[in-house]
Amino acid sequence: MESERIWTAALLVIGDEILSGRTQDRNIAQVATWLNVQGIRLAEVRVVADDMAAIGEAVRTLKARNDYLFTTGGIGPTHDDITVDAIAAALDVGVVIHPKARAVLEEYYATRGGITETRLRMARVPDGAELIENRMSGAPGIRAGNIFILAGVPHIAALMLDALTGKLPGGRPVLSRTIGCWVAESEVADLLRRTEAAHAGCQIGSYPFFREGRVGANFVIRSTDIAIIDACIDSLVRDLAVTGLDPVLDGI
Amino acid sequence: MESERIWTAALLVIGDEILSGRTQDRNIAQVATWLNVQGIRLAEVRVVADDMAAIGEAVRTLKARNDYLFTTGGIGPTHDDITVDAIAAALDVGVVIHPKARAVLEEYYATRGGITETRLRMARVPDGAELIENRMSGAPGIRAGNIFILAGVPHIAALMLDALTGKLPGGRPVLSRTIGCWVAESEVADLLRRTEAAHAGCQIGSYPFFREGRVGANFVIRSTDIAIIDACIDSLVRDLAVTGLDPVLDGI
Repeated sequence: MESERIWTAALLVIGDEILSGRTQDRNIAQVATWLNVQGIRLAEVRVVADDMAAIGEAVRTLKARNDYLFTTGGIGPTHDDITVDAIAAALDVGVVIHPKARAVLEEYYATRGGITETRLRMARVPDGAELIENRMSGAPGIRAGNIFILAGVPHIAALMLDALTGKLPGGRPVLSRTIGCWVAESEVADLLRRTEAAHAGCQIGSYPFFREGRVGANFVIRSTDIAIIDACIDSLVRDLAVTGLDPVLDGI
Repeated sequence: MESERIWTAALLVIGDEILSGRTQDRNIAQVATWLNVQGIRLAEVRVVADDMAAIGEAVRTLKARNDYLFTTGGIGPTHDDITVDAIAAALDVGVVIHPKARAVLEEYYATRGGITETRLRMARVPDGAELIENRMSGAPGIRAGNIFILAGVPHIAALMLDALTGKLPGGRPVLSRTIGCWVAESEVADLLRRTEAAHAGCQIGSYPFFREGRVGANFVIRSTDIAIIDACIDSLVRDLAVTGLDPVLDGI
């Protein structure tokens, strides 16, 4: 198989509420799943506080070594929303009011009490940035070069991702299939290792669980090539059955 | 108020399954909540793949600038479990079989088919490390200096945290109280900013939501001093009521 370019992204989750444990993050899994479909791999994630220096350090590092950087959180109108300022500082550009964002907000708030200086904070972008459409709440996401600045509220972030679907260059999506087995993973560790080694271009992840008083594991086979996955699955199912186990296609 | 030392921790979540979106992380919120009770602040989180170089880079950076580093994931018996090797490499020490871990595993597997070379992988630790007890599955967690290596399965990680409860030096726990309000946060952004500024030693986070077709927000006041929180809450409740709003104690 011809080697192909792998496109990567990093995600920066911004917010004290995640680090305090108050809010269960939902954006990591959401962004990861969406990226897979775009043919882009989520290579690394960081979670930082609402802090200019912490955001700046993460932005500079993650942007430099990935094709894309996504951020979630900190783009509302309150005093703890400093994402735009921190990213602008990291990019060494100023912060400006985006005229289209201003127009969107003015229209949205026309029947909701009118635009105010505080609400206008949501139209602030790093100089030179474009908007990512968000029909729902009026507050747009922001694209600054290869940085995509999304809302922290998961269903609003989802709308912004929808607006980007199919628009970012990527490679072939990573595909996966799962086999489950009621077995301690240590029983089959050697088999998994050998099977992965025998099928170049695929990776096998082993995820143990304890359910109904029994131990089991799901084995996830990932590749960009479904033929490799299928060959790997066939081999694994056969070898598990030979050892007296009863593999369950699509997992347990 | 006398300034006090702030104890910080970082969390490193290790695992392709989180970055692929297959598994929803539960350890960030769990570790964060537990740390708060110990008087330790979760300062930053990273999620990296099952990759020696990525784990090593994160371990070196996070360990150096925090009092504690916790890791979750990658300590099982399969080929994708490389956390111990990666951390040992980052610490520039070898990997050894811990005699007590070996004894624990031998006892656990005595009635479960006996110890094998693969199962013994779970007794491997960075040279010089101690064990963190785990009565449930036999596989222990590991303490290597200020690094705490926990399981990825959340309920096993929880058992390891239980074993550490009260044992790590920390400061005063961060306390919090919440007020909810059916209001767009942009309406009260200035009030929140002024209130936070008027109550030194507390932080106010604003978390908007959309529910039952209406917008609202919860305001979380955090401090190590309950008197500061209570004074801030009283002030905020009064000022919200003055503007015609109906604040809800303990949040919506």
